[in-house]
Amino acid sequence: MRVCIVGIDGYLGWSLACYLAERGHSISGIDAFYRRKWVAEVGGMSITPIADMDERWKAHNEKWPDSFEDMLTIDISKDYKALLMFLEIQQPDAIVHLGEQPSAPFSMIDVDHAVLTQHNNVIGTLRLLFAIKDVCPDAHLLKLGTLGEMGTPEIPICEGNFQDGSIIIYPDGKNFRLDGLMFPRNGGSLYHNSKIQDTVNVKKACDWWNLRSTDIMQGVVYGTDIDEFEGDKRLITRFDCCEYFGTVMNRFIAQAIIGRPLTLYGKGHQKRGLIPLRDSMQCMTLLLENAPAPGEYRTVNQLENVYDLTELALKVQQAGESLDLDVTIKNYTDPRVEREDHTYEVIHDTLSDLGYRPTRDMEIEIRSIFETLMPFRDRILAVGSSLHPKTRWSGEHRECEEIRSDQFKV
Amino acid sequence: MRVCIVGIDGYLGWSLACYLAERGHSISGIDAFYRRKWVAEVGGMSITPIADMDERWKAHNEKWPDSFEDMLTIDISKDYKALLMFLEIQQPDAIVHLGEQPSAPFSMIDVDHAVLTQHNNVIGTLRLLFAIKDVCPDAHLLKLGTLGEMGTPEIPICEGNFQDGSIIIYPDGKNFRLDGLMFPRNGGSLYHNSKIQDTVNVKKACDWWNLRSTDIMQGVVYGTDIDEFEGDKRLITRFDCCEYFGTVMNRFIAQAIIGRPLTLYGKGHQKRGLIPLRDSMQCMTLLLENAPAPGEYRTVNQLENVYDLTELALKVQQAGESLDLDVTIKNYTDPRVEREDHTYEVIHDTLSDLGYRPTRDMEIEIRSIFETLMPFRDRILAVGSSLHPKTRWSGEHRECEEIRSDQFKV
Repeated sequence: MRVCIVGIDGYLGWSLACYLAERGHSISGIDAFYRRKWVAEVGGMSITPIADMDERWKAHNEKWPDSFEDMLTIDISKDYKALLMFLEIQQPDAIVHLGEQPSAPFSMIDVDHAVLTQHNNVIGTLRLLFAIKDVCPDAHLLKLGTLGEMGTPEIPICEGNFQDGSIIIYPDGKNFRLDGLMFPRNGGSLYHNSKIQDTVNVKKACDWWNLRSTDIMQGVVYGTDIDEFEGDKRLITRFDCCEYFGTVMNRFIAQAIIGRPLTLYGKGHQKRGLIPLRDSMQCMTLLLENAPAPGEYRTVNQLENVYDLTELALKVQQAGESLDLDVTIKNYTDPRVEREDHTYEVIHDTLSDLGYRPTRDMEIEIRSIFETLMPFRDRILAVGSSLHPKTRWSGEHRECEEIRSDQFKV
Repeated sequence: MRVCIVGIDGYLGWSLACYLAERGHSISGIDAFYRRKWVAEVGGMSITPIADMDERWKAHNEKWPDSFEDMLTIDISKDYKALLMFLEIQQPDAIVHLGEQPSAPFSMIDVDHAVLTQHNNVIGTLRLLFAIKDVCPDAHLLKLGTLGEMGTPEIPICEGNFQDGSIIIYPDGKNFRLDGLMFPRNGGSLYHNSKIQDTVNVKKACDWWNLRSTDIMQGVVYGTDIDEFEGDKRLITRFDCCEYFGTVMNRFIAQAIIGRPLTLYGKGHQKRGLIPLRDSMQCMTLLLENAPAPGEYRTVNQLENVYDLTELALKVQQAGESLDLDVTIKNYTDPRVEREDHTYEVIHDTLSDLGYRPTRDMEIEIRSIFETLMPFRDRILAVGSSLHPKTRWSGEHRECEEIRSDQFKV
């Protein structure tokens, strides 16, 4: 299969370029290299020392000599003509769109970061949809959304729409089937909103233009490794742990390594869907190899399972202690406006039905991340101050204070 | 009340500036004057010969000497600093946001018009939200959405969220209350999607920043006059009838006046909520005078009633014939992707509860529009070719062909 990865320089993008190459697929890529710039701007860096794109492709070519097709450095939210020409020449069977600003706190820093996020994400995807319509309408668009589009409702979260056969009863007693109607969205940040804004565009582009798309409502990804990197340091993907680009599990492990408290926000009983990097690769590959029909807009909830964030912190603490680290867990003022203790049920049948099976236990994966990162302790220390939350949803920028500090002492 | 109208040069914006002034409110305004430019670009023009903004304010000041505060020419999607300074100085009690690209077909012309629409609307509103948060957080944001955000579902359309007390029964038999969950959105164009994209931002800004906002899901507005214009031609508002900016009823009447067939799309039994211009003014004023509490995001469905488009065409035909016009109705290939015959029920209790009462019968309003426009027959003829649909949702640009031509001969 000919796959074009938009955002190929990113955490997921580069991993997928290796994972798919190992399975015999041809890879082309697009990136504007903003992720490296944004992370530097907020005082972070990739803890894994990643190669530049030239070196990455060199290593990729050595390992998978027949895979690389072409690579273009462009901003898809701005340069439509270049995007159009690239896709026209490539004629990909699938386009994986990972080229978005992926951080909730980054989108909440100030008006400029909010505008950057929604412009980059929404207008980028919009131009991509037009380009697909115009030059490769049969290509499958595999688009990264987020499970965070759905918020934390008191009802089980469906995959995209309400389940067929669901019934609504209005207060006046009238009842109706809900088939085909969108499951309610409720974004937790302007970043999450940008993904909802994408969703409504991608969905309708399939209706209007007979495009085919899979919209991934992905849980929080964690991990450093996939088997395909092994043996070549030039192939390893980036790993962030700052408050902006470090996802919760990755940040916890980085904090444990440098002896800082794991930062729970508020009560710390937020529930989230999680998925290891290697499982995310498995799922995306399954979705690519099982494309929807032309005109079909398919939504999948992509997660291994749902976890309580305190439960995660305790798992990280346990793994850290088995490696002779002294790991504390502390609760801080929640910088976000969110529910801090709630029920959370996520229906995720589509990927199981396609054959997704979790690769490893979470405990083994956590241990493996510790092992990969321990040699880079100095690099984590170097960006240590970027790990602590200070971007508040209120617009204020001030370090979040510790609360109820004794609760989690073990 | 001190009211700042964003998009004050538009069809609704200028009408509201007069309507509110008559009721003793102070008016300031912001506009980038894009509407005049966009209409000229697509070969249309305001059929009513509207004055330029200087002349408008001159007439406004003569009639309501104490109302005018200030006016700023800026693009709120671009110039944040100017917006911020203006609001800081004005300290409005309410901001009415009508400053968006309002046409569905315009948004579907091509990628550039799609990007223009979503950037202008979504980023403009986003910057406005930040500006309100930063300098006038207690101001009530009255924001124009569209009933078209909801699509044409088979269930009664609620006001924003599902009604409290509604129950969902999942296919496995489990049931839950739907209180507080968003009614499913389903936009009919990239313009409609931009309004959904706004909705998710405005809603969350109220949650995060304790802002107060009313989001108007407005039906199709029609009409030329409000009593406040009478006696001064410099005060009259714009009237469009081209395929892009002419709403269905306004376009029908213009077609009737120049002897062209009224253009029904497809089967012609689309149902829409409609509201006369004067009732729209009444409703917006009621909403301004009954602001939501800080932190509240209120959604209202703003319409007089639901009509079948064929029913509307027949009303226009009848009114035209009573004025000795020969009015034909024809069906054309639908340029849109939409349901052409469907049920449509819209709950609209909030405005009735606040005291909204329709001002006139639709027949009287239609007659009054004919009378206002008949003297401008030559102006309609001058833009005659812009009335016929040619922008298709497929991306093709070609005049829509007549279908089943004998069906509506009377």
